[in-house]
Amino acid sequence: MNAFSPGEAAACRRLVELALAEDLGTTGDRTSLALIAADQVGRAAFVARTQGIVAGLPAVALVCHAVSDRLVFEAVVEDGSSVVAGTTVATVSGPLRALLAAERTALNFLQRLSGVASLTRRYVDAVAGSAATILDTRKTTPGWRLLEKYAVRAGGGTNHRVGLYDGVLIKDNHLAGLGGDVRRAVEAARSAPGNDRLAVEVEVDTPEQLEAALAAAADIVLLDNMTPELMRAAVRRRDAVAPRTRLEASGGVSLATVAAVAATGVDRISVGALTHSAPALDIGLDYLP
Amino acid sequence: MNAFSPGEAAACRRLVELALAEDLGTTGDRTSLALIAADQVGRAAFVARTQGIVAGLPAVALVCHAVSDRLVFEAVVEDGSSVVAGTTVATVSGPLRALLAAERTALNFLQRLSGVASLTRRYVDAVAGSAATILDTRKTTPGWRLLEKYAVRAGGGTNHRVGLYDGVLIKDNHLAGLGGDVRRAVEAARSAPGNDRLAVEVEVDTPEQLEAALAAAADIVLLDNMTPELMRAAVRRRDAVAPRTRLEASGGVSLATVAAVAATGVDRISVGALTHSAPALDIGLDYLP
Amino acid sequence: MNAFSPGEAAACRRLVELALAEDLGTTGDRTSLALIAADQVGRAAFVARTQGIVAGLPAVALVCHAVSDRLVFEAVVEDGSSVVAGTTVATVSGPLRALLAAERTALNFLQRLSGVASLTRRYVDAVAGSAATILDTRKTTPGWRLLEKYAVRAGGGTNHRVGLYDGVLIKDNHLAGLGGDVRRAVEAARSAPGNDRLAVEVEVDTPEQLEAALAAAADIVLLDNMTPELMRAAVRRRDAVAPRTRLEASGGVSLATVAAVAATGVDRISVGALTHSAPALDIGLDYLP
Amino acid sequence: MNAFSPGEAAACRRLVELALAEDLGTTGDRTSLALIAADQVGRAAFVARTQGIVAGLPAVALVCHAVSDRLVFEAVVEDGSSVVAGTTVATVSGPLRALLAAERTALNFLQRLSGVASLTRRYVDAVAGSAATILDTRKTTPGWRLLEKYAVRAGGGTNHRVGLYDGVLIKDNHLAGLGGDVRRAVEAARSAPGNDRLAVEVEVDTPEQLEAALAAAADIVLLDNMTPELMRAAVRRRDAVAPRTRLEASGGVSLATVAAVAATGVDRISVGALTHSAPALDIGLDYLP
Amino acid sequence: MNAFSPGEAAACRRLVELALAEDLGTTGDRTSLALIAADQVGRAAFVARTQGIVAGLPAVALVCHAVSDRLVFEAVVEDGSSVVAGTTVATVSGPLRALLAAERTALNFLQRLSGVASLTRRYVDAVAGSAATILDTRKTTPGWRLLEKYAVRAGGGTNHRVGLYDGVLIKDNHLAGLGGDVRRAVEAARSAPGNDRLAVEVEVDTPEQLEAALAAAADIVLLDNMTPELMRAAVRRRDAVAPRTRLEASGGVSLATVAAVAATGVDRISVGALTHSAPALDIGLDYLP
Amino acid sequence: MNAFSPGEAAACRRLVELALAEDLGTTGDRTSLALIAADQVGRAAFVARTQGIVAGLPAVALVCHAVSDRLVFEAVVEDGSSVVAGTTVATVSGPLRALLAAERTALNFLQRLSGVASLTRRYVDAVAGSAATILDTRKTTPGWRLLEKYAVRAGGGTNHRVGLYDGVLIKDNHLAGLGGDVRRAVEAARSAPGNDRLAVEVEVDTPEQLEAALAAAADIVLLDNMTPELMRAAVRRRDAVAPRTRLEASGGVSLATVAAVAATGVDRISVGALTHSAPALDIGLDYLP
Repeated sequence: MNAFSPGEAAACRRLVELALAEDLGTTGDRTSLALIAADQVGRAAFVARTQGIVAGLPAVALVCHAVSDRLVFEAVVEDGSSVVAGTTVATVSGPLRALLAAERTALNFLQRLSGVASLTRRYVDAVAGSAATILDTRKTTPGWRLLEKYAVRAGGGTNHRVGLYDGVLIKDNHLAGLGGDVRRAVEAARSAPGNDRLAVEVEVDTPEQLEAALAAAADIVLLDNMTPELMRAAVRRRDAVAPRTRLEASGGVSLATVAAVAATGVDRISVGALTHSAPALDIGLDYLP
Repeated sequence: MNAFSPGEAAACRRLVELALAEDLGTTGDRTSLALIAADQVGRAAFVARTQGIVAGLPAVALVCHAVSDRLVFEAVVEDGSSVVAGTTVATVSGPLRALLAAERTALNFLQRLSGVASLTRRYVDAVAGSAATILDTRKTTPGWRLLEKYAVRAGGGTNHRVGLYDGVLIKDNHLAGLGGDVRRAVEAARSAPGNDRLAVEVEVDTPEQLEAALAAAADIVLLDNMTPELMRAAVRRRDAVAPRTRLEASGGVSLATVAAVAATGVDRISVGALTHSAPALDIGLDYLP
Repeated sequence: MNAFSPGEAAACRRLVELALAEDLGTTGDRTSLALIAADQVGRAAFVARTQGIVAGLPAVALVCHAVSDRLVFEAVVEDGSSVVAGTTVATVSGPLRALLAAERTALNFLQRLSGVASLTRRYVDAVAGSAATILDTRKTTPGWRLLEKYAVRAGGGTNHRVGLYDGVLIKDNHLAGLGGDVRRAVEAARSAPGNDRLAVEVEVDTPEQLEAALAAAADIVLLDNMTPELMRAAVRRRDAVAPRTRLEASGGVSLATVAAVAATGVDRISVGALTHSAPALDIGLDYLP
Repeated sequence: MNAFSPGEAAACRRLVELALAEDLGTTGDRTSLALIAADQVGRAAFVARTQGIVAGLPAVALVCHAVSDRLVFEAVVEDGSSVVAGTTVATVSGPLRALLAAERTALNFLQRLSGVASLTRRYVDAVAGSAATILDTRKTTPGWRLLEKYAVRAGGGTNHRVGLYDGVLIKDNHLAGLGGDVRRAVEAARSAPGNDRLAVEVEVDTPEQLEAALAAAADIVLLDNMTPELMRAAVRRRDAVAPRTRLEASGGVSLATVAAVAATGVDRISVGALTHSAPALDIGLDYLP
Repeated sequence: MNAFSPGEAAACRRLVELALAEDLGTTGDRTSLALIAADQVGRAAFVARTQGIVAGLPAVALVCHAVSDRLVFEAVVEDGSSVVAGTTVATVSGPLRALLAAERTALNFLQRLSGVASLTRRYVDAVAGSAATILDTRKTTPGWRLLEKYAVRAGGGTNHRVGLYDGVLIKDNHLAGLGGDVRRAVEAARSAPGNDRLAVEVEVDTPEQLEAALAAAADIVLLDNMTPELMRAAVRRRDAVAPRTRLEASGGVSLATVAAVAATGVDRISVGALTHSAPALDIGLDYLP
Repeated sequence: MNAFSPGEAAACRRLVELALAEDLGTTGDRTSLALIAADQVGRAAFVARTQGIVAGLPAVALVCHAVSDRLVFEAVVEDGSSVVAGTTVATVSGPLRALLAAERTALNFLQRLSGVASLTRRYVDAVAGSAATILDTRKTTPGWRLLEKYAVRAGGGTNHRVGLYDGVLIKDNHLAGLGGDVRRAVEAARSAPGNDRLAVEVEVDTPEQLEAALAAAADIVLLDNMTPELMRAAVRRRDAVAPRTRLEASGGVSLATVAAVAATGVDRISVGALTHSAPALDIGLDYLP
């Protein structure tokens, strides 16, 4: 895993542009302009300061390229690699002013995306041995959705739909106009123009709603904030009534509870924290002599 | 505190545009289009699910406005307010399809910025009674610097320079070309074109570098990763030699250690975690009957 | 049917901007500037000169609004309406210079989209009484896909996938790397990350490929350029083997042949000509006294 | 004829960007991502399926380049060439995923522009032997004016003014404020600021208006919807009274009638159908072994 | 004269956006934020400090509107008016912070455009009584062409072609490929596609070239850097040989010499200094109590 | 001095884009298209027609590059060089059509920026021997601030703050809310969030205000429109009371008076005319055989 798709690259380029504008303003790095000669060159290494999963090296490459086409960036490991404190993940060399101008922005991308990948990996490891996959959600940083979903994959997670446009997920608020009728909602969603090519997922809060969803043969049923006992019962009913329907646990899943959730037999577990609460992974830039 | 500055508003509008594009694609919310009638209206409240500091209400207003000018947004509290689980922070009403299209993006802004403000407040509270101020850093989410710095202020923190362009901060890598001479570096930075209106800050790692910085009457000296003992000694030397110079502690400061750092007598404590590792604050959107 | 979705509106606004730039340049309408006083006002009606289906009135509204917010546009019929020569479909009034500046661009949108809708309706009428739906394709005018798909719906047609990103359609060229194995291709496409929420469609040229596709329970099978006899056979096999699989006829379908195709029992007929070869519908702008 | 002017290239690049966005979305071609290995390469030929005139090869080159700079495009014929079914007009080779991503968009440009060129050539051939030139109009696809006018030239036609800004054409609606006085209108238009470098054309519906236009020595007179008899009379009057004035026939000219119109002796015949109603030329992409 | 055309307004809006970005950065006016309360309001008058011609009031309106929609701008005089020291040309009122943020940018537009108008008026006055018109050139400030040409008109001058695209002007460097043959050049330019609606102007340096230009019946002949004697001779030849051809004097014309040039009988005098060397007109903003 | 900073380059690229759009429109140079063969090449030299200081060569390079990547530009002198009539400052060669398309825009940049540099140098020379530096102001051409400030440096001048965002300058209108209390204003400005890194400058009109400013130890005091006698007295008071405070003369300084102002002992003299009233430097483009 070592490259962005075209869509991810485009999203990243937009953020790089914003990031360099906010860091460099119109006048650039006043400190370097004052103290570093224009022809000075340097070389530095991105080094992990702690254990974790690396993600975001293509973003670092885009930052370097945007600052100066004379910066030479080389990845040493691939995104998705597990590193320990002291591992060199990449090197960069070129004009020292450019290097200093790129440093903070490059680290900000790399630390954040590696943070998402590292947290994802911890969830994935916690359910190892079960059949459950760890999914992300739409609880992403505005402007960062494609990149954060990339980092989730680097961590071993699986992507849920990208947005409201490429999947159907019926929540309680969608049921209002239908008198709360889950079955009718699933059928109406499935037959709407353009939806015939999309899986239909429906959120259920109670065993009654679950029955309706299974009766409608929803492709996926999201079990919202249910106890492990309710989830286990849901798995049994699904096996009995609608074996092609997949079950997704969601709501308040934490590292402490995820293994128990997986043990209920659900197919999928979606975790908002992967993207909305991952701390940065500590990675630094060491200048080489 | 209840409005963005023009610069913050412009930065936010750019992120809102990106966020809606990534969530709605070209076709919009397929689920709502299938299940919600075009003329259905609704009303909902943003409600805190836990204790914390709110920040980002103007971003929510911009999201609502961008989705539909028929959405009516009303803030109930101001940014910077402390809330508890159950506090309604704002309401929104209008076409239900628009409400559902805005919901996730609005929450993503509000949860993240409130997360930054809440973590900042914990640091600020931890140093209460000392003279130290809590500062942010340039370790911000690319594209989000102005908004995250706004959230830091909402939490009671103080902003460091915005970027490389509006302040001088000499780090060790800037010293290479000058043989590591801190004093010459301060003087060179101060006399560079355009820098005469800017305070000059210099990072020091050792007591020797500190002496040189004080001798150069640097406006601010950043004490990098020093022990409380070294910091206390630095404060004493500063008082003796260069009383107008301010001292800033930086590097690895945590909630566990910040009070001890403040007790050394430093003027400023900069904390990268405020922006790079703040978990989202749990805020939800409750639809009202 | 009287409004664009947000995505369609955004696409239309981009084209309106391009269209006005190419018609008005930087200096505007030199003829009006020379001959029409700035305060002259006028009123005009969009009138069909022939029989057909109207589509594109929201585009006309956007053109008028972009030229001058003093132009008042009123639709008289809705998109999707059948009109005859002489039917007034909309009126517009306001400053005469603005009216003349908007006229050609407005008509270019309205004539083209009405042309697509009118041709679609003829295909839809031709298969009336059968169970087949008329689908569009990706053979659209670059930049116009969302608008032309809107016009197809106005004409009574059904939209196929928007693009390569929201549906899976395996063509012969995709099979190369798999030794032409249709069944493996369907299974591989279905299990690829992100595709689990999407229907899988596969193109087949021969009865053998059809068998493989049915065996893989493809959601949709595209029968490429088959004779009515082969299609009828395909329908029988589908009914026998994989009754949930839908069959789509495609390739060289014309107004002369579409009824015979529908009579074979296929579920869907996709027609490139709807968007790549629809002549403009003749609509004019009559100035009222 | 084998290259776009800078203005045409800029217009084309904008449409290519829109077209790829609408076809690839943010995630790209899900089918290729699932079935084609990243390092697979391919080669294909654009082949005419019917007789016609090719136009748009530079657009195909821009599409290929925009999708991947590793695609190698080579034109075999030049725009403006007459081809028959089976003629290879260009080849393209490179990564197979990129080839498949570019295919539909490239064909959509090539088929549409070749359609315009082919229809234009039929009109040009129909008036061969006469002195009349075939002109396009402003009835172009919004966003496509420069490209469609390029295709008209590829077909042997002549371009009318680009837009309202680079030529004066007085229509009946411009006369309202002047009491319908054609002569005063021509003189006023000619003396308006900035118009002294532009030819003045005026539309006339009646012999009386023609007299006024000739008396004003209009540079061009547009004969709107006149019968061949009236046109012949107009040519005679022009020869007698204002030999430098050119006459342009316009309004409802079809392939069936254009030869008769040309035989009246008019200098120019403008035909909206060239751009608003040209069917696509059937060109396909054949993958080579 | 009190409004921009749509093209001028669009050009102005782009410059306003650039100007506010360069003056306000991302953080805005730090002085006002520190010293002016958010609810303070004010009122001020734009007052001429010297004699001249006003131009640019619509630009001031756009600046005020861009800074805050709560600023109320009112023009007291119209563009093109002659003012003396002390004349109030416009007033503005609203939030004081917004007023201070708009002040410098508004004055920069108004002073520059009024400077161009004022210098133009001096040239126009200097040739009063002759038949010559004063023309601008393409020697404009990059980004400002449409606005500076507007200011020339406000000063009583006449606009030459906007750019290379809406007029033909053959200079010596265009003649190289034609062996310096002026007559052939005029004829070739006239018959090139798209040029049949445009006047053809040709630059001549010698009486021989003048003869060729008149023989070709060029619409306009530009007499480059000729003495008054040569110009007078040129006028005589023109009257004798090609009375419809207009003569334009160009090259090094100053306020000291323009009357003598006009007296030679040329029709047009183009003056680069109008736009490339006009000093700003001194206008200030006085805050009202 | 031979390169733009990244910020200046970005600002220049935006203006180059606007300038080429306004000169070339969509159709380009109609004269060259008609008369110059596509494969003709040429070579030309930018030659000073008068004495002055060159500035803007990197802008010329950007113009050439934007028009065609086949144009080869070579600077012969550096920005900041003093040239005389006849000095070749740069050469350019390549396709003749591209050369002609770039010519006017390139000259417009070079003449204007060289004009600013040349006027600046005259002020700098006029104060030679004094300790005063010549500063620019915010009275710049909208859109051109960074480039004009670059030209001021090329002329030997010094840049004042870039805009309202990177320096504090308290003017009389800022004092209104504080009862005109200069001292309180300085202190309030200094303690405002974000201003602690910025020098505080205050404008004074009277000796009383000067005293207050010195008492507040303002970093810079702007002496507004004072007589030389008042300035001399201000210098004496500053020396006595606040020797670290710098004094800046401003208001109505001309080439005739600047030496007398410098002789008063002020540190800085700011001159609006450098950027708002510099005439273009006469530089031409000579085509080489």
